[in-house]
Amino acid sequence: MRRAVLISTRHGHTPALTRTGCQSSWTSSSLLSPSGQGQGQQQQRLLHSKSRDCQEAAAVGTRAKLPENEEAIPESRKGITIADILERRAKAGKLVAMTAAAADSDMFKASQVGKPMAKRWDNHLSAEARIREPCVLKKAAKNLKKPGIISLGGGLPCPEYFPFESITMKVPTAPNFSEAATRTSGKEITIGKYDVSQSASQKDGPVYDLSIALNYGQAHGSAQVMRFVTEHTELVSNPPYADWQSCLTVGSTAALEQALRMLCDRQRGDSILTEEYSFSTALETAMPLGAKVFGVKMDEQGLLPESMDEMLSNWDSTQRGGARKPHVLYTVPSGQNPTGATQGEQRRRDIYAVCQKHDLYIIEDEPYYYLQMHDYAAATKPATIDNFLDNLIPTLLSMDVDGRVMRMDSFSKVVVPGSRLGWITASAQIIERYIRHAEVCNQGPSGFSQVILHKLLDEEWGHEGYLAWLMNLSGEYTKRRDVMMDACDKFLPKQIVSWSVPKAGMFHWIKVAYPLHPDASSKSLLQVEEEIFNLCIEKGVLIARGSWFRAEQHNKISPSSSVPAATTPQEQTDMFFRATFAAATPENMTEAIRRFGEAIKESYGL
Amino acid sequence: MRRAVLISTRHGHTPALTRTGCQSSWTSSSLLSPSGQGQGQQQQRLLHSKSRDCQEAAAVGTRAKLPENEEAIPESRKGITIADILERRAKAGKLVAMTAAAADSDMFKASQVGKPMAKRWDNHLSAEARIREPCVLKKAAKNLKKPGIISLGGGLPCPEYFPFESITMKVPTAPNFSEAATRTSGKEITIGKYDVSQSASQKDGPVYDLSIALNYGQAHGSAQVMRFVTEHTELVSNPPYADWQSCLTVGSTAALEQALRMLCDRQRGDSILTEEYSFSTALETAMPLGAKVFGVKMDEQGLLPESMDEMLSNWDSTQRGGARKPHVLYTVPSGQNPTGATQGEQRRRDIYAVCQKHDLYIIEDEPYYYLQMHDYAAATKPATIDNFLDNLIPTLLSMDVDGRVMRMDSFSKVVVPGSRLGWITASAQIIERYIRHAEVCNQGPSGFSQVILHKLLDEEWGHEGYLAWLMNLSGEYTKRRDVMMDACDKFLPKQIVSWSVPKAGMFHWIKVAYPLHPDASSKSLLQVEEEIFNLCIEKGVLIARGSWFRAEQHNKISPSSSVPAATTPQEQTDMFFRATFAAATPENMTEAIRRFGEAIKESYGL
Repeated sequence: MRRAVLISTRHGHTPALTRTGCQSSWTSSSLLSPSGQGQGQQQQRLLHSKSRDCQEAAAVGTRAKLPENEEAIPESRKGITIADILERRAKAGKLVAMTAAAADSDMFKASQVGKPMAKRWDNHLSAEARIREPCVLKKAAKNLKKPGIISLGGGLPCPEYFPFESITMKVPTAPNFSEAATRTSGKEITIGKYDVSQSASQKDGPVYDLSIALNYGQAHGSAQVMRFVTEHTELVSNPPYADWQSCLTVGSTAALEQALRMLCDRQRGDSILTEEYSFSTALETAMPLGAKVFGVKMDEQGLLPESMDEMLSNWDSTQRGGARKPHVLYTVPSGQNPTGATQGEQRRRDIYAVCQKHDLYIIEDEPYYYLQMHDYAAATKPATIDNFLDNLIPTLLSMDVDGRVMRMDSFSKVVVPGSRLGWITASAQIIERYIRHAEVCNQGPSGFSQVILHKLLDEEWGHEGYLAWLMNLSGEYTKRRDVMMDACDKFLPKQIVSWSVPKAGMFHWIKVAYPLHPDASSKSLLQVEEEIFNLCIEKGVLIARGSWFRAEQHNKISPSSSVPAATTPQEQTDMFFRATFAAATPENMTEAIRRFGEAIKESYGL
Repeated sequence: MRRAVLISTRHGHTPALTRTGCQSSWTSSSLLSPSGQGQGQQQQRLLHSKSRDCQEAAAVGTRAKLPENEEAIPESRKGITIADILERRAKAGKLVAMTAAAADSDMFKASQVGKPMAKRWDNHLSAEARIREPCVLKKAAKNLKKPGIISLGGGLPCPEYFPFESITMKVPTAPNFSEAATRTSGKEITIGKYDVSQSASQKDGPVYDLSIALNYGQAHGSAQVMRFVTEHTELVSNPPYADWQSCLTVGSTAALEQALRMLCDRQRGDSILTEEYSFSTALETAMPLGAKVFGVKMDEQGLLPESMDEMLSNWDSTQRGGARKPHVLYTVPSGQNPTGATQGEQRRRDIYAVCQKHDLYIIEDEPYYYLQMHDYAAATKPATIDNFLDNLIPTLLSMDVDGRVMRMDSFSKVVVPGSRLGWITASAQIIERYIRHAEVCNQGPSGFSQVILHKLLDEEWGHEGYLAWLMNLSGEYTKRRDVMMDACDKFLPKQIVSWSVPKAGMFHWIKVAYPLHPDASSKSLLQVEEEIFNLCIEKGVLIARGSWFRAEQHNKISPSSSVPAATTPQEQTDMFFRATFAAATPENMTEAIRRFGEAIKESYGL
């Protein structure tokens, strides 16, 4: 059973292309100049068009009614399958998207008929986000639709001057993913400069090349990679509203900063909720923007919805340093950083319900989503891609009937961090504002990253191969996690140290009983934590201190002296350390945990 | 004669490594975990150290005095040469910089002894920029210096799971840069996953590989590419103060947004100066930040210093919609977008002097700097790299005795836009604040982009080959510019159309006499401009309207309703169109200008 089935009976889709709906028509669309290349003629290209029903529905701006002549939505329905996507691609024909081609997810989605439209978020937007205007030069490019027009408009360099004739990469073939297997069964894939124009007549020729990828592109990313992530998002989440969109990012850290600038307004006293312990870089991102961060209590399944509801129901700005009642939740549902906590399906539903009740917008940051793991010390592991998909806990996006979730996906943890490439999925309104910002900052991801990932994930592996890769990776991380659990079991003094086995991600969160420390009466928790940290360094292991991740630690810093200081940060009563099982070799990991155990024992006089 | 010589007798350098100074000592430095790779042992690596005298001088925070025992600075002195750099590299030994190695320009600069320190810019910084704190996890990584330490700290994935065994690129060899030459004499360069560790014992082995480039890196970029851009900056600008630094960016658009957020504070009513006609994307970047933009009158050499001085001397906030007297100048000195204007050397000195008088911080945006061109219809062109360098107009950075310039360089116009890679150069204080921001947004450029450009520019071409590439490119753009000038000469009605020949860049700025239009009494300038634009589209040419680039067009939009609207934008009295000669083929360009001429003639009834 796919996650889509579990989620809601309100979302569903009709089989692709069997009747009028998104993806049912393909018309000519415009591109920026594909000039140069020594051709004497400006060329017009076809690109998958934005389908009409999505456009019109989006223009309404409120939830569209179901057309009366639509068939009733079945009570339960399978999610999108890879076969659906392949069929849709075959019917659409070859993707034609040249230099800086505009694109959006509607070009690649299945029919959304029968789904509601997202809510509008006007009141959630910051002043900065509201007043952004489209780029005037990009607007003018729509005139390039006219056949035979010559552009003297945009300053796009001629690819003749790109000093790369081709790029070849050696990569594993699915499912033989290991380094050893790659050495023997790996494949060399070459990307030429003019592959697309040189094979324009071939039905199955390449759709992306260096002349396109290495020129300026759109801030939302290339149509080629947009197609892949849109389809992948459908396979995994199939959002239950119609006007969802994906667009590429330069990684989730950047996406988070853009999202916070879009949603939080310093002058409005905006603040955000997150887990009691949260990703330190996320906290460091929010702080300079003047957005205070408040932490919600957690258990081993992450943040507690009742606790969040109580905080919000009883919000008092004066008690919170002037912070307005939060209208944004930032959460990492799977393998949360730093606690390793993973929200179960019901937990996610409960959190979503509280966000509906208090009208919170949700930032779902999911770098570790595919690093969900088999049970510790169990032999069960998914045997097929379908098993793998079925075992994934449903995403918040898959439950998002309101369009109140911005899901952030990233290739950093599952392909390479150096790609600086990820994507977000949210309602059309939010994605449009996001792109307006991206146009005047990062301008979208590197073309090298895009074309290389396209060739590997789309042309070489395809969706099936990529899912097989993710499944394999999840197995690898399970093994690493188990090595660390074994080491903890063996070397940590259990009378004072406790933990839950992480079910996803890269992090293990280790609790050490501060009240049992012999100096607890004379030394503060932070002092003991520091002592243990320093003993660890002395003994040769670097481990992260729990206090670094306290959500509310930055609130004491006022963005300007006229704003009153925030409430005193919550008293920290538990002592934690974070250890990653992602990086070190199994031998080193085991030795490192042994050293950590020694440090604790020394501090506690054991 | 090098530009460095022309600039100031106050800056100079002592021959690299002949006495105590920057670069004279090399000590062990720390890196983030280079774990994984199946090695049983965590490795410590050496990296060029930050030299002591620069660190200490920077710590003082005001201009350092010359050490008494230093020799007097000669009145005139050659700039840094490629030979100096090669000698310095040879003495430094192989660069060792593993995964996420911290680096800064001081590791790669010549001795700065004898130069003053930059001024401090505390009062210019925004609240947001002032309160940024270093990333706590990156701070902790300094503990990795300890020999034998095992990191369970940062969540860096193990490169074992990077699905790229190697990347090979076919590139031109200097000086045979054309596509045709590349087909015959091009070279294939391969980047392996573990090149560095596999050739650790080789003195001249590779210093950068996929396992390093594709993992997380520092927000300032890799040490490998930092070294190249630092040295390149010395060759071209040799800044006349000691504590300058370069750091990588994800392109100049992003760098501009970061700079504006660092310098402009909405709540302070900050505003910036720029050319009367300015890059539309820059204007669109500033507007949502609440920073008003004011335009300075221009001539064919760009902005007029006297006009700027007068504006600033008589600044009246109430007349300017509440905007505080500007403390930032944004300027594109070479081949300015959209006007194509290039500031001559004296003009640059005069602009710098006005900025000193009014204490303006300067953002020098120079994407087109190397696209400076030979005279139109002249046979002269540089024969050697030395000629080429000598003929470049000195940069503002090279005149910057105060450290008041942030120079923005980019590979977009001179290598490939898709690299999303550039760099900035400014004082250590400004670079430090910039990096603090980059750490919580883009996290630095793509690793694919970095390693590919490193292999091409540094390992294959070297500084000499890269300068030869730039010289060749400048010649190519000169040819394109000349094709457009010939076409304008042939097809535009000179009784109403006039222009200056651009001396750099990609843009031609064409003035059309609005007062001579037969309907000038009944149609506004904007109406006539629109009419001609539409006639152009009708006749098959897309050209940019001058009004799109009016600096003050966005000031009418208040960031919040409580702020009064800006002054009425300056009345536009001249009508302009911008045409690029970068993109279209020579034949298309000529035909496009013919069509543009037809449109003007039709509108004017000629």
